[in-house]
Amino acid sequence: MARWEPGARERLQKAALDLFLERGYENVTATDIAEHAGLARRTFFRYFADKREVLFAGSEQLPAAAIEAVHATPTPRSALDTVLHALDLIGTQLAAHGQHAYKRRTVIASSSELQERERTKLAALTTALAQALSERQVPNATAELLAQVGVATFQAAWGQWVNQAGNASFHDCLEHATADLKSAFAASIRPPQPRRTRRTRRAT
Amino acid sequence: MARWEPGARERLQKAALDLFLERGYENVTATDIAEHAGLARRTFFRYFADKREVLFAGSEQLPAAAIEAVHATPTPRSALDTVLHALDLIGTQLAAHGQHAYKRRTVIASSSELQERERTKLAALTTALAQALSERQVPNATAELLAQVGVATFQAAWGQWVNQAGNASFHDCLEHATADLKSAFAASIRPPQPRRTRRTRRAT
Repeated sequence: MARWEPGARERLQKAALDLFLERGYENVTATDIAEHAGLARRTFFRYFADKREVLFAGSEQLPAAAIEAVHATPTPRSALDTVLHALDLIGTQLAAHGQHAYKRRTVIASSSELQERERTKLAALTTALAQALSERQVPNATAELLAQVGVATFQAAWGQWVNQAGNASFHDCLEHATADLKSAFAASIRPPQPRRTRRTRRAT
Repeated sequence: MARWEPGARERLQKAALDLFLERGYENVTATDIAEHAGLARRTFFRYFADKREVLFAGSEQLPAAAIEAVHATPTPRSALDTVLHALDLIGTQLAAHGQHAYKRRTVIASSSELQERERTKLAALTTALAQALSERQVPNATAELLAQVGVATFQAAWGQWVNQAGNASFHDCLEHATADLKSAFAASIRPPQPRRTRRTRRAT
């Protein structure tokens, strides 16, 4: 009986998103999802702990992936560029499996419980990035701040990527969001003084 | 009987924090808090919906205060400086009533439920700031990104303020965190090209 179902995970994910959008997240059960995918209920539980986890499958691997991505970033780079480079790697991997990202975003926006879960996921990613930066001798407070700014930029880029899915690479979306942010900082910094060293901190 | 208790709110807040730290957040009830403060249980519920809300009292006013603070910021300012100015106002107000901030932070760090609640509070603040920026003609995506970056900077500044409570103004902590971030951006931006207009966006 319990034979291997080709593409079961993907079928369950697609069925879940379709049902969540059609009936509302609260009104869908794991059994509904399995049925809609033409699979047994127990097949559902072979892949996912509950219906919420269909939307967050794999996210427990994000922190470790982020740390690895920071370590994989060549060293002669500023701390900010290191975070952004790591998030570029992560986002590009996620985008490769992100064909349902638009539906997923809509479902998450519909439920405060799911939004909380999403924030928890991003907080774990932020903590991991901060830790990896600290290991590269970035002071703790700066590492936390840059990790948060990096994840904010990542979210902006992901939002753009989802909006344009198929027509832009995640990398380009991240470049765009980064340029947006750098432009905001350039507009905030007073007109440049005669050339200074690059790392000079100003009291503004 | 139900007479007015002078300083009841403050006594309950102090009692709650002391008990949460002493016994653990999960092990304290509203009744314990009231008793510890020398007040009746029903007095507790006149001020707070439950024990969790002792830690978040007033936070429902943050979004409106943030919108007001953005509107109170003089206009010839960059979008980033507007957010930071608004958060300076907010943080300075919070700091004026923040005598228990260190204990509060320790309690929140002890419970994932409380951390979630804290993130929800900050997300509402971020949304409000983004909305207020949009009303100032900042494009939506940029407004959201800058609101997040602003709140990240706020959190860094608040963390510093709590660490040094009594020895630094919130304003100085925010300036310090902002300088830290600007320095990270300066280190990331390539060596300056021959003078450009300040708002030029570069594709990096």
